[in-house]
Amino acid sequence: MTKSSKAVRGASKTARGNTTIPADLERFLSDNDPRIHNELFEFLRIPSVSANSDHNADTRRAAEWVKTSLDKIGVPAKIYPTAGHPVVVGEWRNAPGGPTVLIYGHYDVQPPEPLELWTSPPFEPTVRDRKIFARGSVDDKGQLFLHVKALEAHLATRGKLPVNVVVIAEGEEEIGSEHLASFVEEQKKLLKADAVVISDSSMFAPGLPSILSSLRGLAYFEINVQGPKSDLHSGSYGGAIVNPTMALARILATFHDKDGRIAIPGFYKKVRAWDPKVRKQMRSLPFDDKTLMKETGVAVLGGEKGYTTLEKLWIRPTCEVNGLLSGYTGEGAKTVLPARAMAKVSCRLVPDQDPAEIEKLMKAHVAKVAPKGVKVTVQHLHGGRPWRAELNGPIYDAARRALRAAFGKEPVITGEGGSIPVVGDFERILGAPVLLVGFGLPGENAHAPNEWMSEENFRLGMRAMATLWDEYGATGSS
Amino acid sequence: MTKSSKAVRGASKTARGNTTIPADLERFLSDNDPRIHNELFEFLRIPSVSANSDHNADTRRAAEWVKTSLDKIGVPAKIYPTAGHPVVVGEWRNAPGGPTVLIYGHYDVQPPEPLELWTSPPFEPTVRDRKIFARGSVDDKGQLFLHVKALEAHLATRGKLPVNVVVIAEGEEEIGSEHLASFVEEQKKLLKADAVVISDSSMFAPGLPSILSSLRGLAYFEINVQGPKSDLHSGSYGGAIVNPTMALARILATFHDKDGRIAIPGFYKKVRAWDPKVRKQMRSLPFDDKTLMKETGVAVLGGEKGYTTLEKLWIRPTCEVNGLLSGYTGEGAKTVLPARAMAKVSCRLVPDQDPAEIEKLMKAHVAKVAPKGVKVTVQHLHGGRPWRAELNGPIYDAARRALRAAFGKEPVITGEGGSIPVVGDFERILGAPVLLVGFGLPGENAHAPNEWMSEENFRLGMRAMATLWDEYGATGSS
Repeated sequence: MTKSSKAVRGASKTARGNTTIPADLERFLSDNDPRIHNELFEFLRIPSVSANSDHNADTRRAAEWVKTSLDKIGVPAKIYPTAGHPVVVGEWRNAPGGPTVLIYGHYDVQPPEPLELWTSPPFEPTVRDRKIFARGSVDDKGQLFLHVKALEAHLATRGKLPVNVVVIAEGEEEIGSEHLASFVEEQKKLLKADAVVISDSSMFAPGLPSILSSLRGLAYFEINVQGPKSDLHSGSYGGAIVNPTMALARILATFHDKDGRIAIPGFYKKVRAWDPKVRKQMRSLPFDDKTLMKETGVAVLGGEKGYTTLEKLWIRPTCEVNGLLSGYTGEGAKTVLPARAMAKVSCRLVPDQDPAEIEKLMKAHVAKVAPKGVKVTVQHLHGGRPWRAELNGPIYDAARRALRAAFGKEPVITGEGGSIPVVGDFERILGAPVLLVGFGLPGENAHAPNEWMSEENFRLGMRAMATLWDEYGATGSS
Repeated sequence: MTKSSKAVRGASKTARGNTTIPADLERFLSDNDPRIHNELFEFLRIPSVSANSDHNADTRRAAEWVKTSLDKIGVPAKIYPTAGHPVVVGEWRNAPGGPTVLIYGHYDVQPPEPLELWTSPPFEPTVRDRKIFARGSVDDKGQLFLHVKALEAHLATRGKLPVNVVVIAEGEEEIGSEHLASFVEEQKKLLKADAVVISDSSMFAPGLPSILSSLRGLAYFEINVQGPKSDLHSGSYGGAIVNPTMALARILATFHDKDGRIAIPGFYKKVRAWDPKVRKQMRSLPFDDKTLMKETGVAVLGGEKGYTTLEKLWIRPTCEVNGLLSGYTGEGAKTVLPARAMAKVSCRLVPDQDPAEIEKLMKAHVAKVAPKGVKVTVQHLHGGRPWRAELNGPIYDAARRALRAAFGKEPVITGEGGSIPVVGDFERILGAPVLLVGFGLPGENAHAPNEWMSEENFRLGMRAMATLWDEYGATGSS
């Protein structure tokens, strides 16, 4: 158990009692800045696409790269095999009496396709406009690596850390972290910590450090509609055969009503009402629909009626099509009646929706609306529970001070529309609070072509996290 | 003008007055059968995919191959450039007083994709179960080539033809014959004929020779829905941005009502009622829904309520999706909110629907049902008018006799759900009746993987056409 945060005094305070970045750590990070960037670029060059088995060797190589980089800074690491991609765990437990922190990140990345939309190659990091462009730059290699370098600043400068540290890096975050929960369960003792820190999210705006209070969950499906056994000539057969592509379109069109509400029966049953105070705070954040419209290039926003944009993004569930494929998609006109049609569909979930329950509802709904003459299957590819935290306790207080020190601004509390499936697992299995402090930015193109991470945020992130350990270390531990 | 068919006496009659295959032509075709097959295979090996500009050189090569094969048999040919793929025309006009026939075919083929569904490579003709498997085997290289060989049988055996012949082979049939109508218009004099013969269709059933009385027209569209300017993370942005894929699905779902009728306003306005006698004859054809279900591998048939299957296929219009593409379609789960979604959509038309009018109706409908927040464009890729013939006159009578001679059965009169856009153009520009006599078979996979042509039909087709020229030549000409 950690002591009360009221007793805390950070290691570095200005005359006005405000935390600053410790000068020795600042100097180390400044002096080593070019080398640190080179190392990051090396990491980003490894195409560790976990979803694509063609990249299994690359994903393995990324795990080894992380292990070596931990070993080198003095946090001895091991690679643990799983039924999927391996987990890397590094440990430094030489701060007796100090609290123990578990730092989590992932070394796998999203597939880079469509490749033709990248300005520079996805696995050749390129700096333009003070942004590091590369697949994985912000999600999550850059953010995982800034933690490694924050630890290095302590160990290289002082030969020790103010807290005990366990670093865990997995290789399956982008495909649902299938084997992580059981790994954490099995290695509960190894991973025991007073707090978990994760940087795999974004700040609310440039210069505005942010702590996340909620994440949406996920239920990801693939829907396949099989019509005739092979593609047919649309002239010779069209009119008498049920077209699986049209059938799929009709199924997808039933997922929402005209107000943008999800029309799958029972979908909202478990949605917990949000605290009016939280909704009020969200409305006070400096957010402008026009900025989002400009950023994404759309003329009007959409979604569920009756909610603000931030509410739609953070505290309301969704049902989106992520991909569609059927028939002829090349140049010109091919008159084919396709044999099959496929849609990738995913629902973002909010407390207390459960992916397994959503799977049942989705399957029942699709079975009900599927037209005769085609065979429809719904496969649940993966799911993750939604998460919400109250943000009370020493790790949160230390984080507020460290972020203020690095960014010069009081952090804001935000929500996040995306999912980090393991957050709930860590909390449940380790019984430790989870601090989600991310250094991405709006428009960073995570999961899209031209993903980038702000160079400045990479630098300030290292400083904030280096400062955090002094702040958190000063709180002591059980 | 041709003389009345009542005066006709064919060159070869049995004692019972029935036409038979002339013995000299039969012998030539038998003796040369292996060589003829080798030549056909050579033709089928050329991947003349007109829709794909990567294959432009191959398409050109196919045109040259046709020219050479006509030159070699004694029908001197020329290649005529167009703004697209060239037209090959061969001429033999040494039958003074005899009628002139224009034989039309096309040397271009459909794209072979999806390649992984072919049992043998699409451009390496392979015989299995007495079927010639190859892209273009039946559509239309095999059928064009059997005409060339029927002419060769006459010229090689007798040094002459009983009719004047013009052979025209185009390279844009699979992409809408964009430049053919204007070519025919410009070369009206060169192409002047008393009848046009086209083999680019199928027999009603194995062993049942067929003459086509109607074709459906076509209006082929590509619909593009643009949402955000680039792919977005479906977690970070999902819920506030209109998903273009979902928008496309909702648009497509408005194309039909629950009875399978097309719900685009005005779509049926120009549909001409069919003669009850024709509908009665169609119902008398040996057709079984179960055979179609088995052939296509579907459990129930679909389409417009209130019509028989043959009516749905031949005399009723359709609106089909031919292809869909959006977002992530690879292995696994990628949580992307796609920037755009594309559908290929084509309508089969029946007399007197007009592709240009259908284009207007489609565009107006899509504009009306398109949701806000996305930009929807409808591009009309190509169109062709529907066609219907009365089948009276010497070319039809001669064809009935020649088909009976080759197949031993009275030909049936059928409709065809597919489109041969040039049929109407020939009729209109040349003022000549068009005989559509095809040697494909149900299930031949035209426009699909594993396209095949029956070896037997290829052989009997050559014989029927060789016999046809004797029969038709005996009718004389103006």
